Amino acid sequence: MAEKKTEKKPEPKRKNGVNVDALLQAREALKAAPQAAKFNWRAACKWQNGTHSRTKVKGFHGLMEEQNHKTEFTFDADHPEIFASEDLGATPVEYVLVGLASCLTAGVAAVAENRGIKLRSVEAKLEGAMDIQGILGIDSDVRNGFDGITVRYKIDADATPDEIKALVAQSQKRSAVYDVVTNPTNVTVEVNQASA
Amino acid sequence: MAEKKTEKKPEPKRKNGVNVDALLQAREALKAAPQAAKFNWRAACKWQNGTHSRTKVKGFHGLMEEQNHKTEFTFDADHPEIFASEDLGATPVEYVLVGLASCLTAGVAAVAENRGIKLRSVEAKLEGAMDIQGILGIDSDVRNGFDGITVRYKIDADATPDEIKALVAQSQKRSAVYDVVTNPTNVTVEVNQASA
Repeated sequence: MAEKKTEKKPEPKRKNGVNVDALLQAREALKAAPQAAKFNWRAACKWQNGTHSRTKVKGFHGLMEEQNHKTEFTFDADHPEIFASEDLGATPVEYVLVGLASCLTAGVAAVAENRGIKLRSVEAKLEGAMDIQGILGIDSDVRNGFDGITVRYKIDADATPDEIKALVAQSQKRSAVYDVVTNPTNVTVEVNQASA
Repeated sequence: MAEKKTEKKPEPKRKNGVNVDALLQAREALKAAPQAAKFNWRAACKWQNGTHSRTKVKGFHGLMEEQNHKTEFTFDADHPEIFASEDLGATPVEYVLVGLASCLTAGVAAVAENRGIKLRSVEAKLEGAMDIQGILGIDSDVRNGFDGITVRYKIDADATPDEIKALVAQSQKRSAVYDVVTNPTNVTVEVNQASA
């Protein structure tokens, strides 16, 4: 008979490492206290030089109180050398692709967990087409952003092809970033002059 | 008389480190060769465990050939501990804020350069409000994405308050990520089962 390990909780029911029980409990709790569902996500950006900036992510608001990530995350962004920049970080539009990829992928894992499907591997390749005549101001009929984005998933799981497609479809349906990209979001910009 | 340094090119006209001359030359060149303006930005995401994923950014396409960043950029994303996750990276929605912050900030620097305005400091604090009743599927009338985003700039520059506000306004007008967030973008998702 195997010794009981008391240091780590056994997690026999989790196939993909997602604590779906906790999420389902949170759903019930938030139904009763909808104010706790109001979150604020934050980022603080400092210009460095040229097109290079550094953005930090640490605190956010949710469950009616201030929250913090375990660590502060720091992200350098820049333009590439072919734009006569230093290439000291990913481009801003690539950060959007990172957000979309990670949001859909977390969703695939959570939905698979909820449906009892064991994932072996999930890979997504994203491609965003952009005509830079927009951002360069050459042609005002060309939009600044992506013409469109393609996400190609390759998933290995204990499931039929149709079940795997359904995982991704459900993830799209509940994805925050998929919503942000495919639908308009209002952005308010305020400007203050810093005191010298 | 000071010795001439031959190792580094002098850049006497650049106030903020943005090579605006090169960008203006590129604009002229791309007017004559619009096909070169068609870019493809890419990201490759691999699910790790739970809601944790890792996305890499390296290659892209533009100027009619394959391009590469000088280095490969790697981004971990996860959900926070209050969502019963491991908090091993920023959340996907925070990556969108990073993209928006860095895009607008690079634009402020480029526009200031073009207008002969010396920037001393540029800081932006972003806040995205989100009611997570959407992503949790509690209320289908609540959207999954941000209710709205506020960007608060604090800028110290050799310019009047109105000139500083105009910098930010022009950056918004030409920003790729501002466009992606405020307008709808089509996302096509394809799913293939990996061979075991």
